[in-house]
Amino acid sequence: MRDFLPADKARRERVLAVIRERYRAHGFDEIETPVMEEYSRLHAGMGGDNEKLSFSILKRGMDSEAIRAAAEDPAALADLGLRYDLTVPLARFYATNRAQLPTVFRAIQMAPVWRAERPQKGRYRQFVQCDIDIIGDASSRAEAELMTASLDVLDALGLEGGVIRVNDRRVLDAMLDVFGFAADERPGVLITIDKLDKIGPSGVVAELRERGAAAAAVDAFEAYLGRPAGTPTFDDAGIRSALPDGIPDDIVDHLVALGDTVAAARGVEAPLRFDPFLVRGMGYYTGTIFELAHPSVDYSLGGGGRYDGMIGRFLGQDVPAVGFSIGFERIVDLLQDAADSGERSLVLVHDRDVPLSTLLRLKAALVAEGARVRLEQRPKNLKALLERSSADGYTTFAAVRSDTTVESLEIKPLD
Amino acid sequence: MRDFLPADKARRERVLAVIRERYRAHGFDEIETPVMEEYSRLHAGMGGDNEKLSFSILKRGMDSEAIRAAAEDPAALADLGLRYDLTVPLARFYATNRAQLPTVFRAIQMAPVWRAERPQKGRYRQFVQCDIDIIGDASSRAEAELMTASLDVLDALGLEGGVIRVNDRRVLDAMLDVFGFAADERPGVLITIDKLDKIGPSGVVAELRERGAAAAAVDAFEAYLGRPAGTPTFDDAGIRSALPDGIPDDIVDHLVALGDTVAAARGVEAPLRFDPFLVRGMGYYTGTIFELAHPSVDYSLGGGGRYDGMIGRFLGQDVPAVGFSIGFERIVDLLQDAADSGERSLVLVHDRDVPLSTLLRLKAALVAEGARVRLEQRPKNLKALLERSSADGYTTFAAVRSDTTVESLEIKPLD
Repeated sequence: MRDFLPADKARRERVLAVIRERYRAHGFDEIETPVMEEYSRLHAGMGGDNEKLSFSILKRGMDSEAIRAAAEDPAALADLGLRYDLTVPLARFYATNRAQLPTVFRAIQMAPVWRAERPQKGRYRQFVQCDIDIIGDASSRAEAELMTASLDVLDALGLEGGVIRVNDRRVLDAMLDVFGFAADERPGVLITIDKLDKIGPSGVVAELRERGAAAAAVDAFEAYLGRPAGTPTFDDAGIRSALPDGIPDDIVDHLVALGDTVAAARGVEAPLRFDPFLVRGMGYYTGTIFELAHPSVDYSLGGGGRYDGMIGRFLGQDVPAVGFSIGFERIVDLLQDAADSGERSLVLVHDRDVPLSTLLRLKAALVAEGARVRLEQRPKNLKALLERSSADGYTTFAAVRSDTTVESLEIKPLD
Repeated sequence: MRDFLPADKARRERVLAVIRERYRAHGFDEIETPVMEEYSRLHAGMGGDNEKLSFSILKRGMDSEAIRAAAEDPAALADLGLRYDLTVPLARFYATNRAQLPTVFRAIQMAPVWRAERPQKGRYRQFVQCDIDIIGDASSRAEAELMTASLDVLDALGLEGGVIRVNDRRVLDAMLDVFGFAADERPGVLITIDKLDKIGPSGVVAELRERGAAAAAVDAFEAYLGRPAGTPTFDDAGIRSALPDGIPDDIVDHLVALGDTVAAARGVEAPLRFDPFLVRGMGYYTGTIFELAHPSVDYSLGGGGRYDGMIGRFLGQDVPAVGFSIGFERIVDLLQDAADSGERSLVLVHDRDVPLSTLLRLKAALVAEGARVRLEQRPKNLKALLERSSADGYTTFAAVRSDTTVESLEIKPLD
């Protein structure tokens, strides 16, 4: 867990403000749920491996006897837990508040989640997730809205050129069926295929053979992997060319419609790349899956997919849903050296003998004009003060003497 | 704990944005600490009654034996807890990060805290606190900066006319000394005096007699309460006139300097009211104490004071500190019916036959112009749709047909 000092906190809030503003512009509505959810809900099998990393809240008012009894059933010690993602809380929120929400509900959530990870570089036990979800629209337009809005967010953050890798869980399933993998071995096969970026085609084939997957199916898959493949265009011909024969039309049609819709909304060719080997880990995905990439980095800046089964588990009624989680922490790291927000900020360095009333009137006038102002008495080491002010995000400074007025201030840049 | 639906969440974020922007303009820096702190730190006696209301985090990986052993020492079940205020975390933050902070550190914290309150109207187990603190300045200028900035926040929220009631813990102590209350009975006497607004002067005197407080002291206090008292001016003469003889000069001087400083910064008479009976509950206050009042409500909109002893407990070295907590939840309630932020928002109600590409291009053009846009297919019950959109914070709508362009949109207000 981390403390955020002023410069870091300001950068985080700036990024959050851009994300919020852009997603809101695209018609998404921000909501907030409590950080604690019921223990039983957090451990209902919808959080995957994250359930095991969940922090639990100790029940209040337990006496010695109750604690001793809980030795045989540790779950009895906790009635609440901290959320480990924003998807389980969203499903609960929707079930609770559905009557007050639009038929097609576009949600924004930007909030911390907690996981009891072992300390390691780049992993935090508290971190912020930024999710958008559309509940109640089964058409590919929903995926297209998530993608269009998220590309717009990247553009607004100065990260133009985002690209989205797209696949469909049903494509994967149909493909494995075509190759001849039995239904019960497919989950294991997908885990291996998910390593394609890391271990390459030959590594994947070798691991599939080690696993003892059906030999004829692995041979068919190997032949497919070895086919001459360029980057397929994101249209009917391109997507079909990248797939073995025998994939049902409706799945391909959903992808093609998605590409057309994103292109229409962006007014340019859709920056979508069909990737038949994109897997994504979470078990709850049922259809389209996608990841946001950017040429400046080799890791993804977000990902999402369709999870039509999950909301229904709380509601007792099927509701289509699709979500996208933009990689807030990664984006903040990427924008580490980004320039300030254009905010006008000023350190007033004053001599000791300047009356406080003069300083405060000066400050008030500048604040009223929209500046961010810090007063500092001139120290022996002026350079150190200016360096610290710059690190805190201030961009200019001016010296103040007894006769200084707003008009006579000489404002200089802090470097 | 509460879910926040779109309209509520938007209002909360608007208020937070105004508070953040104004406090930042006044030279305060926002920081953030993890929601969890070490259990032992949360139970070190600095949180008053709130320590008892703290939520604790169950230790991970306890086996049956460890749980059974903890039956005799329930604190062994928890190693972390959720913060119940922002002051204990600030003290810990300052001790941890002091080397990277300015000599006079002006902090903003806007974040949730948790208390295991019994459910009752207006009390929540998760709520947001907005604190500003100045660490490292013992002069009354620090109090004046907190007050000036907070009055500016109220102004910016449309709540002009804020007034601050001011007292000093040392005034109370000196007063009780003058009346003749023994040092050991003063904490109890203060608890009774704190009820003055509720039970009136005669109630307070009666309760002091019931308590068995020294009779001569109660008589002296009763005589003082019965003196003819107008509203004292916030200057040397006014403050002295409101106090019995024998209050040390340095305490009065600190208050007078505070009033002068606020007046200089605001450029008008300082809206401060000296209230020698203001007590404020927390035990850690050591000097000036104050509460923000507004003519539109009979409860306070925030409060704070000087707590010079507390930071030193973490640091092993005395550091002056003064803080103010603006009543975020109360202010949000007060602004319940406040108008929108002036954001341009638009619901596009389209016929079923309008091509999706037309709709998306229209939306993209409006979003690019800075509007917030929601697309809705025309339902049978248009009135219900418009009402819901209005509740969600949209202010205008327009009908879209196949030949509609950005130029031909007829935008009408949603009522």
